[in-house]
Amino acid sequence: MGYTFVLVHGSWHDNSAWAPVIARLEELGHRAFAPTVAGHEPGGNKGVSHADCVASVVDYIARKDLKDFVLVGHSFGGTVIQPVAEQLAARIRRLVFWNAFVLQDGESLEDNVPPHYKALFAQIAQPDGGVMLPYPIWRDAFINDADGDLAKQAYDTLSPTPRRSHTDKVPLKTFFSLEIPKSYLNCTEDTALPPGADFGWHPRMSSRLGLYRLVQMPGSHEVIFTNPRLLAEKLVEAGRD
Amino acid sequence: MGYTFVLVHGSWHDNSAWAPVIARLEELGHRAFAPTVAGHEPGGNKGVSHADCVASVVDYIARKDLKDFVLVGHSFGGTVIQPVAEQLAARIRRLVFWNAFVLQDGESLEDNVPPHYKALFAQIAQPDGGVMLPYPIWRDAFINDADGDLAKQAYDTLSPTPRRSHTDKVPLKTFFSLEIPKSYLNCTEDTALPPGADFGWHPRMSSRLGLYRLVQMPGSHEVIFTNPRLLAEKLVEAGRD
Amino acid sequence: MGYTFVLVHGSWHDNSAWAPVIARLEELGHRAFAPTVAGHEPGGNKGVSHADCVASVVDYIARKDLKDFVLVGHSFGGTVIQPVAEQLAARIRRLVFWNAFVLQDGESLEDNVPPHYKALFAQIAQPDGGVMLPYPIWRDAFINDADGDLAKQAYDTLSPTPRRSHTDKVPLKTFFSLEIPKSYLNCTEDTALPPGADFGWHPRMSSRLGLYRLVQMPGSHEVIFTNPRLLAEKLVEAGRD
Repeated sequence: MGYTFVLVHGSWHDNSAWAPVIARLEELGHRAFAPTVAGHEPGGNKGVSHADCVASVVDYIARKDLKDFVLVGHSFGGTVIQPVAEQLAARIRRLVFWNAFVLQDGESLEDNVPPHYKALFAQIAQPDGGVMLPYPIWRDAFINDADGDLAKQAYDTLSPTPRRSHTDKVPLKTFFSLEIPKSYLNCTEDTALPPGADFGWHPRMSSRLGLYRLVQMPGSHEVIFTNPRLLAEKLVEAGRD
Repeated sequence: MGYTFVLVHGSWHDNSAWAPVIARLEELGHRAFAPTVAGHEPGGNKGVSHADCVASVVDYIARKDLKDFVLVGHSFGGTVIQPVAEQLAARIRRLVFWNAFVLQDGESLEDNVPPHYKALFAQIAQPDGGVMLPYPIWRDAFINDADGDLAKQAYDTLSPTPRRSHTDKVPLKTFFSLEIPKSYLNCTEDTALPPGADFGWHPRMSSRLGLYRLVQMPGSHEVIFTNPRLLAEKLVEAGRD
Repeated sequence: MGYTFVLVHGSWHDNSAWAPVIARLEELGHRAFAPTVAGHEPGGNKGVSHADCVASVVDYIARKDLKDFVLVGHSFGGTVIQPVAEQLAARIRRLVFWNAFVLQDGESLEDNVPPHYKALFAQIAQPDGGVMLPYPIWRDAFINDADGDLAKQAYDTLSPTPRRSHTDKVPLKTFFSLEIPKSYLNCTEDTALPPGADFGWHPRMSSRLGLYRLVQMPGSHEVIFTNPRLLAEKLVEAGRD
């Protein structure tokens, strides 16, 4: 049976990196849609709010009239699919958080990152509201499983991310009582958040989901670049009934 | 050299699920025996005590006159092989805990699970003393690596487990001074207990063994259904000298 | 592009175990050098200090006039490459800690191991200053992924390690401000230190590095014996730009 996937990217990304993932999903008999979240396109409006980000994905789904889909969020994308699920619960078959933030009611993304990241982003934010990820952090903490050439090529596809998407508090009044099944896909070498009980992805974020299905695969935060075929296969394992 | 294995199943299981594991062990030149623990057969007496469970395995081993064997316990089965080891230490070559409870003296299994599981089992216990595992928990937390069809087929082989096997306190006066070598086999996607320091299998349970050999494999709590051949191979790695 | 590796072994080892790792690195187009740390050769002076160990590696690098190399430390070797990096920073392209200690300024290796290990080593230290690792610990906690024959053969290549290399406090006044990139290679079944937040290798040791690149591979503390080819390949992933 084929599933429909809606794929929500993370910070510094737009929808373009999903292309090889979508190709593999289609080979496997599924279909997939990937919006670019408001403000995340290169040259976009870096002053958008978190609510603008959420609205852009809700609008995308409404415009395409998508139903009965598996909704996937990567990293920052987790903070988007949570409010989208509150608004579109009846259309969603399952939620998949792939090394994604799972916010508690009223938190921002930055409430969940280590102090040194918060301080860094405050320092390097640009006047237009965008903030770029420094290359050394990308190279060693985000895409640690790439060789140097791929690390650079992939970095060239990134663009500044709207800082308010990290700092706005996100109301989540009904998310934790929604009856949508949930999965967490964890890449075992993902160090974009420092591994460990204090700041790691799993089980810190995953356990907030209550009952959830765990799927793991080897790789960094950016297997979308380093292993997109296996990522697609694991999204199926995470998303299927 | 061929080893002899005695395989003790977990809750909701009987001995039938071991069949493909035993077949693979035999292919590799070993032999294996798998009792059904008292009260665990479909339609059995769900009022049995933990001591009854232990006695049934001791009796099985005595009846078959097994010696010099590797004694394996899965999940609840860990709470059985601990007292069996106290009674039959001289017959046991090595103990293998496969995502199994390792009780401290005087604890019950339920003393080692999260409060929400305790509350759930109290609520859904049946008058005859049995308690069944709800399918949604099975699907997402126990057999997360199966597809939907296998998850359902495997669920159909389960039966209610005797609740006293989870709630009886188990005396373990000599276990931690026995000189039997010990191994812990951990499946890295096992979420039957919530991953993490508070309630996870490894290293919370494994570290109680003192000096032990760690073996890991990918998969859920129920690789006995999803990957029995690799399970057998890893039991050999865990059980060999 | 070929890299130059300098490989610093752990306790109870000398440089001989690196041979198959070096062979594989050379096949892949790299070159590698492996000193024996002072006092670590069989029959060597077991009374050497930690500073003697460090000096012997600094001297080796100077004597061979090695430059622009990736400096790798395994286990105890981590405590050696830290002061070597302080002295030879300009020659080092990247530091790789492979299941290695990362000391904080003024600590000894033994300050970072569980009390039961400290007590054991104090008890079994020999009059000449050497201390041997007992076979049961080697078999189950260090080389858990070997079969019994390989475990014994590898043990026969070990020799007593100089105890002061574990107990001397190591001054590290500049290490944590050096701008050398750093990687941590973690073997996922390494139980030479007990897994978990209190005493485990990763992320307890790795996180001390600040920004670092994580690489993982399956295997025990002693993949140098059980999987040297993959170890070499992972050292390249850890060491490359």
